[in-house]
This record gives sequence, structure tokens and C-alpha cells, in this order.
Amino acid sequence: PSNKKLLILPGDGIGPEVVREVRRVIDWMDRRRAVTFEIDEGLVGGSAIDVEGTPCSDATVAKAKSADAVLFGSVGGPKWDSLPFEQRPELGILRLRKDLGLFANLRPALVMDPLVDASSLKPDIVRGVDIMVVRESTGGVYFGEPRGVETLPDGKRRGFDTDVYHEDEIARVARVAFDLARKRRGKVTSVEKANVMQSGRLWRAVVGEIHKAEYADVQLENMYADNCAMQLCSRPKQFDVILGNNLFGDVLSDLAAALTGSLGMLPSATLGAVDPTTGKRHALYEPIHGSAPDIAGKGIANPLAQILSFAMLLRWSFGMEEDAALVEQAVGKVLAGGLRTADIMQPGMARVGTTVMGEAVVREL
Amino acid sequence: PSNKKLLILPGDGIGPEVVREVRRVIDWMDRRRAVTFEIDEGLVGGSAIDVEGTPCSDATVAKAKSADAVLFGSVGGPKWDSLPFEQRPELGILRLRKDLGLFANLRPALVMDPLVDASSLKPDIVRGVDIMVVRESTGGVYFGEPRGVETLPDGKRRGFDTDVYHEDEIARVARVAFDLARKRRGKVTSVEKANVMQSGRLWRAVVGEIHKAEYADVQLENMYADNCAMQLCSRPKQFDVILGNNLFGDVLSDLAAALTGSLGMLPSATLGAVDPTTGKRHALYEPIHGSAPDIAGKGIANPLAQILSFAMLLRWSFGMEEDAALVEQAVGKVLAGGLRTADIMQPGMARVGTTVMGEAVVREL
Ligand SMILES: CC(C)[C@H](C(=O)O)[C@@H](O)C(=O)O
Ligand SMILES: CC(C)[C@H](C(=O)O)[C@@H](O)C(=O)O
Repeated sequence: PSNKKLLILPGDGIGPEVVREVRRVIDWMDRRRAVTFEIDEGLVGGSAIDVEGTPCSDATVAKAKSADAVLFGSVGGPKWDSLPFEQRPELGILRLRKDLGLFANLRPALVMDPLVDASSLKPDIVRGVDIMVVRESTGGVYFGEPRGVETLPDGKRRGFDTDVYHEDEIARVARVAFDLARKRRGKVTSVEKANVMQSGRLWRAVVGEIHKAEYADVQLENMYADNCAMQLCSRPKQFDVILGNNLFGDVLSDLAAALTGSLGMLPSATLGAVDPTTGKRHALYEPIHGSAPDIAGKGIANPLAQILSFAMLLRWSFGMEEDAALVEQAVGKVLAGGLRTADIMQPGMARVGTTVMGEAVVREL
Repeated sequence: PSNKKLLILPGDGIGPEVVREVRRVIDWMDRRRAVTFEIDEGLVGGSAIDVEGTPCSDATVAKAKSADAVLFGSVGGPKWDSLPFEQRPELGILRLRKDLGLFANLRPALVMDPLVDASSLKPDIVRGVDIMVVRESTGGVYFGEPRGVETLPDGKRRGFDTDVYHEDEIARVARVAFDLARKRRGKVTSVEKANVMQSGRLWRAVVGEIHKAEYADVQLENMYADNCAMQLCSRPKQFDVILGNNLFGDVLSDLAAALTGSLGMLPSATLGAVDPTTGKRHALYEPIHGSAPDIAGKGIANPLAQILSFAMLLRWSFGMEEDAALVEQAVGKVLAGGLRTADIMQPGMARVGTTVMGEAVVREL
């Protein structure tokens, strides 16, 4: 039985277009590297609502559970904006995270040298930025109960959510962050609002305990979320690994991504726990960018984040370090050669569409 | 009876130093403009804990309630970091916001022309940025119940907070944002995570209803908080007024402030409801920056945010538009003249300390 069972979920908007370019890379690997993937495909998000009546069917969850890795595109779009809360396309990704126990969302924000000028920040501020945001992704206010919008006796409405963390949830994601820091530059910045939130107070306490007991060799810094947003904008190079809960991780990882100026370049991985008997873990890989409905279907989307998500998948889920590096180097060469999609276009470069970019990566391979 | 009853709460860290420079401005006004303020002073934050055993005593709250306006410095510092959650210095400002009903926190992020280069962003990205963040400041996760850290039967801990909004709380702060937009460039960007939070869903619905019923002439845009963080970093000029709940408002206003590159320049106002009989409203004015314990006592802190907070106070609470403008112009002239405190220092400028900067403003007056 293959240990390379791959489920591909292209999703909505530009998802299918950019996933198509990954297929090119897979075809190349089939031919040249003699690796065979067992590939299945499924629907998720709005396109799943249209066909299956739900943003992520039980069948899709089952497929994802039996796969060794999931390659995810993106979900959402104006077509489904007026659906009731319980039926929105976003539930597709939320359900996958929850049902597969994908609690550690890894979001690198890397400024590649040829793209320094794409940033809205000054070159000397962003050159060399290499941040890994570790976001908790199955807990907190995203899933906490009770939650709802209720109508009071006088007819007025009240909306409420619960931001809740169990200490084990904090500990396991903190370990992921500390482990990563050890392989990187040895520093974790843990972010919360321990000055106003009780879950933040527990967050800070537990991260401190894990640090002291298991990772005293790593540098730990605690930072309030508002200050972290500020520091990311003014002095991003101070960060190595940033650790945050589901909500702060969401906002701060997007900010970290934005400051690279090349959102269309950024992959992410969401990992579950390692199964002690098989040594395997569930994992899902997706670009940081969304479904970008405004440019969907125009053939101009940048496929590199999706291709780099696939490289992450090769490395983390299939242990194919060499192949992952090959793909990443090919992307680097294509950029060095001057090709740019619209989102990262700079004067003097050659503007190309999705397909030409994908083909160029395969050519470099 | 004077209608210029002013309560000054210098607080901790650099608070007392920068408030001292406002005193200079007040002295000048006493002498030259023949306005007399009835001034009271009080303790808040860590310094109140040290003397009165609590970060904001009942007596201080009573003084604040009877004042026409409160000028606030800043609170907090390492000395009080290990105090229990219920006794932290931050409770000083939180209690004042809550007990005085100061629900609308107005945080301008303005890039002044002489300071364009102080930003970490490229000059063409930030030149002309003029954003007003309206943050709800008496509700949401800052005060929602239930909240706490509990120990489960197995000895493990669980921390939880409640993010809750009543529709009237959303409506009143939305009106403040729409009113401001009318006097500015006519656009409100309302920020939430309506795609994952129930309180966010209600937030979007209520803001939409108020817009339709009362402010159809203003442009309303809804934006997810993660996307807003991104957009602030990459294209800040698209924003006029940003409206957010207590937590998103906290993080996004700090980010907006950071991108100006001159945090030491930014004032803020927090306003209560207008009393229908007296026409008055409680109001507190404070700089965006914190107590900066690392530079406290060194005489190098920038007093301009505190001075500009006082100008805001003159305008909003005392209706002294002309005097407010005089103070703001004096600050502009001092900057144009080349004086800079360390935080906004640029090549070719003259570096000065807190007192010299304060005196220079009075000289320009
Ligand atoms: C699609 C949405 C539910 C999601 C989130 O808020 O987690 C997105 O912003 C993300 O970061 O993946
Ligand atoms: C001091 C602290 C409680 C406060 C907050 O989180 O509101 C601060 O960050 C602010 O923005 O005024």
C-alpha cells in the first residue's frame, strides 16, 4: 500500500486554477522522479455546497482522514455570502481542522530576496525577514461554547462567543512552536492579552511552564497582541517563531504575510498530533491567500503559494526533503529569471499569467 | 461654577514626565489666554496601587465623574507585573472606561508630513494617511461574563472569556463612527470576524441596519479583521474611519498607529454618551503610547502625544476650537523647525529631550 495517499480539495475562486499548476508538478514527478502518488479529489466550500449541499461532506472528511496528506485550495466567494451562518463555505476548512485534529497551523512569512521591493515596507526593514507563525487552530473563540445570537424578552439581540482553552491544548501547540524554534533561530514570542483576558492569563502561564520544564534552551518572550501587531509593522526582524491562539494567530499571521508584500507566494501547513503507534500525523497544506473571487477565472492568479504548499507537503508528510527542495529551488529560479504574476509585478520584470508561471516552474525542474 | 473642571491622572512610567509638559501649556494659557482651569490631580495604575492599594480608588472615580474632562497619562510597569490579575495597573484605565461609560475610543493615526520618513513603510505608501479608528471600549471580551480560570476535577486548568455584545452597544458606537465619517471623507470600514464569530455576525448586521436607516449617505464597507490587518499594512490610504469591537479595535488601532512611525505623536479620546439634559459627556484623553518603563525617568520621552491629547480635550470637551488649533499648530512648527525626540529622530534633525520639546511648544505658542 502506498504511503503517498494525497487528497486534493481545490475549493472555490482561484483555488482550482492554482491547484491545476500543482498537477503539472506532480505529473513531472511521476515521469522524472519515479514517485507515484495515489491521488483522490473532492469538493469543499461553496462548490461543495452547490453540488453536495454542505461545505464539507462526511464522505470528504472520511477521505481526508484516510489520506496521508490533504492539499487544499481556498474557499468562499460572493455567491455564497448570503447563506446562513451554519452553511457558509468557511465551515469547509473549519470542519477539516476540527475533525482531523489539525491543531497547529504553521504560517511562514518569508521575504525572498528577489521580492524585497514588493513589500510596502522599506527594503532595509524587511530584507531577511523570516518569521514562522504557529497558530492554534482547533480551539479558542472559533469553536468555544456557548455561542449564538439570542433575542431577549424585549426583542433586542445579543451576540456572544466563548474564547476557551484547556491547558493541554495550549501545551501541545506550544511544543510545536518550541520544536520549530530549536531548528530555527531559537526564539519564541508568545502572544496574548494576558492583561485583559483570562484565557490569555492561562496561555501565558502554561507556555511559561512548558518552556521551563522542556525548552529552557529556547528564548521565550511574552508579548501582548496589540504590541505584537505594532512590532511586526515597525521591526519585523526581531521575530523568529510567533505563537498565538486561533484568533490572534489568524490576524497576526495575515499581517506577517502582508508585510512580505508577496501573499501570493506564501504556503502554510496545518498539522495534527503524531499517532504514537503509526508515527503518522494528519496534515493539510494550503496557501495563505484566499479564494480571491475578484480575479478568479481570469488566468492571472499566482500559483506559487499553492506550489510551495505542495513542497511543504512533500517535506512534512512524505519525508521527501530532496524533492521539496527541488521544487522550492525551481520557484526561486523562475523569480530570479524575472517572471512575475500581477500581484508581485515590479518594473523591469516580465508579467505572466497562472499557466505560464506553472509551466516555467516545471521547466526549471 | 467653572465648566473647565479638569482631572489629571499622570499614572506610571513616562506618564508623569509627559504630563508635566502639558502643565507648561496650561500655565501659558492661564497667563495669555485668560482661561482658568479648575485642576485636580489623582493617582492611577501602579502608583495608585503603591499608595492607595488599588489601581483606581472610588475617590478617583468620583473625581473623574465630577470633572468635565480627564487627562490621562499611562499605566503599568515591571514593578507591578507579578501582581494577581485582580490587582493589575491596567484595571485603572479599564475601570475608568467602564464606570464613566466611555464606550467610544477614538484613535487617530495621522502621518504628519515632516514625519513621513519616520515610518517603516515606504513614503509613497504612508504620505497623507489619515485614519480614525473608532474602538468600542466598554464591552466585548474585556468585560464579558462568565470569565475565569477554573481547575477541573482532574487538576487540569481551563481558561475562558466571553465576547458579548448587545445590539444597543453596537449601534451607539456605530453612530459615533458614522458621524465622524460625515465630517471626514465619508467612509466607514467596519471590522469583525462575522465568518467565525456570532458576536461578529450581530456586529455586521447591526452596523448595516444603522447605516441603512440613518447614514445612507456614508459609504460602509465590511471587512474581516485579518484582512484589515493586511490592508492596513499594504494599502493604508484606502481607510477613512475604521470601526471595531474592543479587542479588534485595540489591535488594529495599535497597528494603524505603528504604521505612522510616530507613536509618540498620537493622542486619543474616549467618549461617553451625551447627557440629554446637560448636553455634556464624560471624556478621557490619553496618548496611544504606553508607560514605556524602559525609558521612564530618563527625560527623553516624547511629550507631543500627551500635549496633542490635551488639544483634543480642549476641542471636544471644552469647545475651545481656537486654542486647540493653536496648540496643534505650535507642535507642527516645532517639528518643522527640526526638533525631534529620540523616538522620531531622523538624520539632519536636532535631538532634544522631553523638557526642551515641551518648552519649544510653549515658545511657539
Ligand atoms: C476561512 C476562514 C474561516 C479562515 C479563518 O479565519 O481561520 C481564514 O481567515 C484562515 O485564516 O484560514
Ligand atoms: C492597558 C490596556 C488594558 C489597554 C487595552 O488593552 O485596552 C491598552 O492596550 C490600550 O489600548 O489602552
